[in-house]
Amino acid sequence: MSAGTDGVSAAVAASFDRMWDELSDIGRDRVTDGYRRFAWTREDAALRAWFAGAARDRGLEVTTDRVGNLWAWSADPDAAVRAGRAPLVLGSHLDSVPDGGAFDGPLGIVSAFAALDVLELTGADRELTRPLGVVCFADEEGARFGIACAGSRLLTGALDPERAGGLRDDHGVTMAEAMRRAGASTDHLGRDEDALARIGIYVELHVEQGRGLVDLRAPVAVGSSIRPHGRWRLDLHGRADHAGTARMADRDDPMLRLATAVVAGHAAARELAGLATIGKVRVEPGAVNAVASLVTAWLDVRGPHEEAVRGIREAVELAAGTDAELESYTGPTPFDPVLRERLAAVLGHVPVLDTGAGHDAGVLAAAGIETAMLFVRNPTGISHSPEEFAEPGDCHLGVLALATVITELAG
Amino acid sequence: MSAGTDGVSAAVAASFDRMWDELSDIGRDRVTDGYRRFAWTREDAALRAWFAGAARDRGLEVTTDRVGNLWAWSADPDAAVRAGRAPLVLGSHLDSVPDGGAFDGPLGIVSAFAALDVLELTGADRELTRPLGVVCFADEEGARFGIACAGSRLLTGALDPERAGGLRDDHGVTMAEAMRRAGASTDHLGRDEDALARIGIYVELHVEQGRGLVDLRAPVAVGSSIRPHGRWRLDLHGRADHAGTARMADRDDPMLRLATAVVAGHAAARELAGLATIGKVRVEPGAVNAVASLVTAWLDVRGPHEEAVRGIREAVELAAGTDAELESYTGPTPFDPVLRERLAAVLGHVPVLDTGAGHDAGVLAAAGIETAMLFVRNPTGISHSPEEFAEPGDCHLGVLALATVITELAG
Repeated sequence: MSAGTDGVSAAVAASFDRMWDELSDIGRDRVTDGYRRFAWTREDAALRAWFAGAARDRGLEVTTDRVGNLWAWSADPDAAVRAGRAPLVLGSHLDSVPDGGAFDGPLGIVSAFAALDVLELTGADRELTRPLGVVCFADEEGARFGIACAGSRLLTGALDPERAGGLRDDHGVTMAEAMRRAGASTDHLGRDEDALARIGIYVELHVEQGRGLVDLRAPVAVGSSIRPHGRWRLDLHGRADHAGTARMADRDDPMLRLATAVVAGHAAARELAGLATIGKVRVEPGAVNAVASLVTAWLDVRGPHEEAVRGIREAVELAAGTDAELESYTGPTPFDPVLRERLAAVLGHVPVLDTGAGHDAGVLAAAGIETAMLFVRNPTGISHSPEEFAEPGDCHLGVLALATVITELAG
Repeated sequence: MSAGTDGVSAAVAASFDRMWDELSDIGRDRVTDGYRRFAWTREDAALRAWFAGAARDRGLEVTTDRVGNLWAWSADPDAAVRAGRAPLVLGSHLDSVPDGGAFDGPLGIVSAFAALDVLELTGADRELTRPLGVVCFADEEGARFGIACAGSRLLTGALDPERAGGLRDDHGVTMAEAMRRAGASTDHLGRDEDALARIGIYVELHVEQGRGLVDLRAPVAVGSSIRPHGRWRLDLHGRADHAGTARMADRDDPMLRLATAVVAGHAAARELAGLATIGKVRVEPGAVNAVASLVTAWLDVRGPHEEAVRGIREAVELAAGTDAELESYTGPTPFDPVLRERLAAVLGHVPVLDTGAGHDAGVLAAAGIETAMLFVRNPTGISHSPEEFAEPGDCHLGVLALATVITELAG
């Protein structure tokens, strides 16, 4: 059964919009209008249940790997691997940063399911030579335990399972405890060879998080690489004291060191064409009338190359008067250049863009898996914010692009 | 029945130390070793129960005023008021800042009860011409709801009861809800004329929060005045954005304005011989990989005079690029000069010191009540910190000084 172009467009829109509506209330904060979808919480469980339901609606079989990522398969992936036809996997994540937008993550998963609907509608699904998979990676944002792409990093072994399991959230709950409370097994945390073998090619569609496509007046791009990116923790120790009696000259106030570190980070990032962000800070004891005893600040640095990242980090350390504690680091990650050019060509010579944002696709590419990314235009470039947006028309074009990619790679 | 000087000293030490031990575990954090005794919490209830028990042990009758302060009386205070012999009241508070020390507050209450024990031991209690009271003011530190001296300010009417009742803690619980959950009535919040009439004279003993007595090599001083003091809230609005993609030049990052405000506050405080502290900060959304959308910072300013406080506050506002929201302000508060000189003389011409710390005594003095303070030496000057300390010998001398003051004022 096939449908005309208009019919396909209308069906794409209907399929996409219905899924979008189903997700729109899960984990949304009524005050900020942003999303708070953190790994292994009740909201996360609702999102995972939605994923499993959307997969079953399409006749896909849902599996879970050793580290808690969710997979949906159009046919037995292991049989396909044995036959030398490892699946084409699409996907992204459903968790969010605190008060994040609706698109970062969910757009990739909803678009993947909608693209499968397009193939079914046009009958192209019957021509595929390898199975399709859709993956929902766990804990991509790292909002709760501080490590981004925890699900994909555990999967590839880039993140030590002992270390990950022991990471604590702001309430002192470890990742391992949180996973078990959410019903996930932690008995075999660590690199999952079987799950990795099932990924023949991985393609992640994502909302753009800058204004590259706006400037280029294009709705969709292919990703070229992910810039180097590190996260560090600054423990600025001082001495608690009475705000009304301790003389300024006698104080050891870590808030002052935070201030100089923030200013130094901004200046160095501008000078080195990189990005420096301190967006999470904890002040102890946190009283209006007490000098702080400890300020903990998290530093996020990206740059056009590794030297820039190092230069920015060192400028912040110098200003803070202390070494920063490394939490995660990813060097520059190019996506497969042959695959990238093939997709850009089949999509009508769309733009090729790099990005400063980390993605599970980058983790898989770094692990040697053939990987590509598609970006959908973001009219403001704003992301990790309730203001994050993509026009519905652009989202629907993203679905069609993904369907074209599937036909190209698995047809 | 009277006892010799050595017997009195030993009895003071025993009485004081027993009470100190009883309090030492309530609300103590095992990690920081500091106290977390916040108003209307379970810890606060334990402290209030201890106060009532210590009062009953001494045959004192416990009453509560309209705003939740606790009072213990040696005889019917209202009958004494009618007879023109309004009680002499001693006291302080039992709550703490986050990770505060053991002395700020409790020293005054324990010393008051111990001074009563001294009078009983020496038989001096039978010579008194007016009743004695001991008061435990509620919520002096303002750690939970942001307003210092809430109990005494509500009592005198300096704090609007509507406003106070609606103040929220970090979990969104209002002060009125917290009071009711703790079993306190909020039906008649507001200035309590009856309770105020019962205070003939108020004397508060407190650990010194600077090094004045260390420099003067004296264990006890009489207070002269409280310097002007204000608290403001800075709401620094920005725009949340992705730490990996939003260009530095395109960002509206409120963390940068916080940094310049902190630096400006320190510089202005040094220049104007005052104190500026930002010790409480909230960053939203608070993600490692998101530019902050809102930074809320609380500014505490003290100065030798009101012009200095204003100058420091204006320097911070200029740097922050926004007006500060006033949370509380207290002008310079001198204690009664005649009473002050009388006490300094009867105590053997001890030093007279002013302080930058706010106290319930200052609130009562500002309301026209005859008020005095005694300070006990703090060897490091450190306060609002687990390191806050006073030597046991100095504490015992403080008790004896308080007993002398009682005999002078109510004898």
